[in-house]
Amino acid sequence: MFARTSLSGFPEWLPGGRIVEQNVLDHLREVFELHGFTSLHTRAVEPVGELQRKGETSKEVYVLSRIHDPQAEVTDKTLGLHFDLTVPFARYVLENRNQLAFPFRRYQIQHVWRGERPQDGRYREFIQADIDIVADGDLPRHYESELPLVMFEALSALPIPPVTIMINNRKIVQGFCEGIGVDDIDEALRAIDKIAKVGPDGVKQILTANGVSEEQADKLLALAGIRGGKETITNAVTALGVENETLQQGLQELNQVLQDTHEQAGDHIVADLSITRGLDYYTGTVYETIIEGHEDLGSICSGGRYDSLASDGKRSYLGVGMSIGVSRLLSRMSSQQMIKPTRTVPTCVLVAVANEQTRGESNAVARVLRQRGIATEVSPKASKFGKQIKYADKRGIPFVCFLEEDQSVTVKDLRTGQQEPIDPATWMPAAEDLKVRVVSDN
Amino acid sequence: MFARTSLSGFPEWLPGGRIVEQNVLDHLREVFELHGFTSLHTRAVEPVGELQRKGETSKEVYVLSRIHDPQAEVTDKTLGLHFDLTVPFARYVLENRNQLAFPFRRYQIQHVWRGERPQDGRYREFIQADIDIVADGDLPRHYESELPLVMFEALSALPIPPVTIMINNRKIVQGFCEGIGVDDIDEALRAIDKIAKVGPDGVKQILTANGVSEEQADKLLALAGIRGGKETITNAVTALGVENETLQQGLQELNQVLQDTHEQAGDHIVADLSITRGLDYYTGTVYETIIEGHEDLGSICSGGRYDSLASDGKRSYLGVGMSIGVSRLLSRMSSQQMIKPTRTVPTCVLVAVANEQTRGESNAVARVLRQRGIATEVSPKASKFGKQIKYADKRGIPFVCFLEEDQSVTVKDLRTGQQEPIDPATWMPAAEDLKVRVVSDN
Repeated sequence: MFARTSLSGFPEWLPGGRIVEQNVLDHLREVFELHGFTSLHTRAVEPVGELQRKGETSKEVYVLSRIHDPQAEVTDKTLGLHFDLTVPFARYVLENRNQLAFPFRRYQIQHVWRGERPQDGRYREFIQADIDIVADGDLPRHYESELPLVMFEALSALPIPPVTIMINNRKIVQGFCEGIGVDDIDEALRAIDKIAKVGPDGVKQILTANGVSEEQADKLLALAGIRGGKETITNAVTALGVENETLQQGLQELNQVLQDTHEQAGDHIVADLSITRGLDYYTGTVYETIIEGHEDLGSICSGGRYDSLASDGKRSYLGVGMSIGVSRLLSRMSSQQMIKPTRTVPTCVLVAVANEQTRGESNAVARVLRQRGIATEVSPKASKFGKQIKYADKRGIPFVCFLEEDQSVTVKDLRTGQQEPIDPATWMPAAEDLKVRVVSDN
Repeated sequence: MFARTSLSGFPEWLPGGRIVEQNVLDHLREVFELHGFTSLHTRAVEPVGELQRKGETSKEVYVLSRIHDPQAEVTDKTLGLHFDLTVPFARYVLENRNQLAFPFRRYQIQHVWRGERPQDGRYREFIQADIDIVADGDLPRHYESELPLVMFEALSALPIPPVTIMINNRKIVQGFCEGIGVDDIDEALRAIDKIAKVGPDGVKQILTANGVSEEQADKLLALAGIRGGKETITNAVTALGVENETLQQGLQELNQVLQDTHEQAGDHIVADLSITRGLDYYTGTVYETIIEGHEDLGSICSGGRYDSLASDGKRSYLGVGMSIGVSRLLSRMSSQQMIKPTRTVPTCVLVAVANEQTRGESNAVARVLRQRGIATEVSPKASKFGKQIKYADKRGIPFVCFLEEDQSVTVKDLRTGQQEPIDPATWMPAAEDLKVRVVSDN
């Protein structure tokens, strides 16, 4: 379903692939709106100073200059393409804080750009779908349970294998480190984050080389190995025998999310204390999401609670958010032919043209069909009917309408070959044929 | 409905304005798909060489460079943001010609960027909505009638005043010039194009200064003054007494479009021989569209037939296309408060929370409502009911649900103040309240 990609890192779809993408984006939008999230679309550019405000210098930003006015030097005011939707959202909230009603629930589905070398299947242009709930001053904890449930519902509505959302809590790691006397928490987090790459022994080496004792390292590794539901993790953490108030609070927050989400998501929302990414930025619950059977793809939906989205000096805005990497998800699903469209055009019916003098009559039949929401094309040429049928067949259009000499109308189902008389003013195709759909091959 | 615009030329909407924009884009998409146009989305960037392939050096292109790898010199391979959707579409068709089925009907709704100084209400980032039908080798004339009818239907579905699509044909002007002995047609077109700015006398001065005789100039001005339906223009052109085959062919093509479209569009598709823009590029019918009462806004939907979209040396691709300037249209309609949303969130129902212990019960009611497509939020806090109602009211949410102590559920319509018992499993709001809608103030 991919088009020829003449620019590495900038994927484009063939029409069938685009139909899948649209369908997925429509599904996400529908679920987000059902939960009262309102759409935002921010401009593609931000001043470089804004893009690097959080010390984000690792992201490869594309900077802009006008072709007739090239600019050699990059300053804070130089415009750059946004590399995520959080930076523009934070700026937008701050600029429009007096006209927004808080808590503010928004979703945002847009392209983002990163000037990274397009290796490892990384894209330079891709779609993210974010939801956030932002408050000024106070953000109730229950939103930390609501967000993963919305994303679980959104992802479960897609024709993809089941997903599992894994959660952790910054306070657990922080309290645990305090409790066992490890000072440099960020250093410890960075080491644990390497576990998949270097293994437990490798992590232990890094930790002990940085002043962490063997015993402390073992405990940290034991903590990171804990995964499961409410009882499992409570027992496992308690068994490590570390006493700390922040740890207890984190554990309680984690358990609350597990409890709130269990009825709907069951074991698909699970605690996993090995999750460290984002813990330097997030201040409470963090989320990562894997597709079952596609764990190697990494997290396709991540986020967490943050206490400092933006601040105007007087008020500070805090929130909880999650972001789906839509392009990555779609690319995997398509390349493995897991999802495909039922046809490559929206068209449900092709009206044949007997000769160019009666094209007007064919147009009239098409209009009648469209008035009731049936996507209809009229044949490009009054060629032999066999050729007109081929036009439809090539695109997967399921029905061809013919105007008979007695002015009656017949419709032929190209899959069964059956042809029957119809009244265009009342005939309806089967619901599954009316709109192009996306189906799973599983 | 505009957000604070901290970057001139890069407009953003407040949530209510974004709802209007989404609604307009949804309408356009629906009509395009009903007519069998399939969606394409091309990457935001093209090599500068591609962007300037048609000698388009007048467009202010934004060029990109990577922040960690700044590039002083602009070459043909430097990436630039696309300034329209035609250049990327031509490139896409050529690259994927072996996988596309021709005639290929596509629509494309995307942002484009122009580095122009944002004066005269011009934007640097704005949305275009294009439809094109492209063929390899031969493109039937009837598409020149179909396209304006699709756009007429699309624009008429929007909550804006009526539109008029004005058409002209390259061959009329070309044949007329040949017939009266004017050699430099492009020069003549450029002069006529200035008529609104310098008046007929000014145009005459420019023409005569360029070797056109007074008599020829008068005839050209007379031609440019012709506007109307089939009979009017045929009589008026014939009265000018110019004999030329190309002119006759152009007139016939123009009349065919007027005839094909009259039943549906009446006088809303009309010939206007003063239209010159694009005649250097288009080879047959050309289109411009004005909103009645907003003629000063200029054309909001333009296009035409072209015989050279792209060529691979062996085959050449030709087509007919039209493009709506969505942002410009929306900006006018919103700034004059002509269209507005019925609320600023998708939410139809807010479920109140009596106390935090019963939040789960409120969540359950919300789930039941959402299952039948009713967008529902649960109150952020178990504050006093008056405060919860205020939360809904501030956002224009029409209904608030309450869980009574006997476990029954009531719903309050915030506009009438009426409250009545409901069964969440069967209750439906009025169709006009279910989804946020966009209404016209006219």
